[in-house]
Amino acid sequence: MDISAVNALPYEDFVNIFGNVVEKCPIITAAVWSMRPFASLSALEAAISEFIDALPESGKEGILRCHPDLASRDLHGGTLTRESREEQARAGLDALSSAEASRMAQLNVEYKERFKFPFVICARMNDKANILRQLSERCGNERAAERARGIEEVKKICRLRLQGLVLTDAPNKL
Amino acid sequence: MDISAVNALPYEDFVNIFGNVVEKCPIITAAVWSMRPFASLSALEAAISEFIDALPESGKEGILRCHPDLASRDLHGGTLTRESREEQARAGLDALSSAEASRMAQLNVEYKERFKFPFVICARMNDKANILRQLSERCGNERAAERARGIEEVKKICRLRLQGLVLTDAPNKL
Repeated sequence: MDISAVNALPYEDFVNIFGNVVEKCPIITAAVWSMRPFASLSALEAAISEFIDALPESGKEGILRCHPDLASRDLHGGTLTRESREEQARAGLDALSSAEASRMAQLNVEYKERFKFPFVICARMNDKANILRQLSERCGNERAAERARGIEEVKKICRLRLQGLVLTDAPNKL
Repeated sequence: MDISAVNALPYEDFVNIFGNVVEKCPIITAAVWSMRPFASLSALEAAISEFIDALPESGKEGILRCHPDLASRDLHGGTLTRESREEQARAGLDALSSAEASRMAQLNVEYKERFKFPFVICARMNDKANILRQLSERCGNERAAERARGIEEVKKICRLRLQGLVLTDAPNKL
């Protein structure tokens, strides 16, 4: 799909196709449709990024809270979005050892108690060992820094989802 | 559920319960969780309203675009949220005559072509005749006025959904 095809989409189709590039936040996709035409895929990505940056801090926390815990029971329970399930599986989070699963669950709880939002990381850019290490390290951050870090990860996830949808011949290209 | 029970909810439960008080916009619920404790249900409603008001105009259009067309094929196709399906059914929109359905479909198209977002009205506060009349009338509005009007209706829908979830003994009380 080239950018002129993206720009020609009615909002219903645009939201149907791109509504989950930010997890469970179709409002963001639906909002940036107002800013068409986009000169490129990067311009669409930038519009999403700017919309997120303009939200109050509570709104950024809201985005993070729309994300599932990584490697949670949801991963096996079928309640995740398709995108999240595939990304987590690709990082090996659907095949943790019992010790890894237990450590992940414990750190998820610790992280959420500290920050009041879930740990968000771009699973497609990390493997399970790396994710566990970063989860552990990031538990020690300050709240504001961690909120900003989570939003950075949201944007990485968004970029890869956008590319996967538009550049179907090169879904992993950065 | 009294307000202290609402205030005691972890964000996951809060979003699970209240995530669709603004249609398909769980980010809003997830954001206002940051503002707990709420003194009352009205205070929670006000926090949602203020969050919406602080969004850029594109964000308000984004909210409107997350709403389904009224009395569309989705109503019979099972793709609506439970809340929207019940509200539309209560207004009689699942039992339109062929002439009414055709008129509604035509006006929905006209409305969306003019405004680039769907017609939003609090179905529970209107019957089908009233909805058809208002849809027809509102097609003549200016875009900015109609965006503001749509957001007013979003807030009415939100209030009734909140009341239905919290005041289970008096779901229709205003």
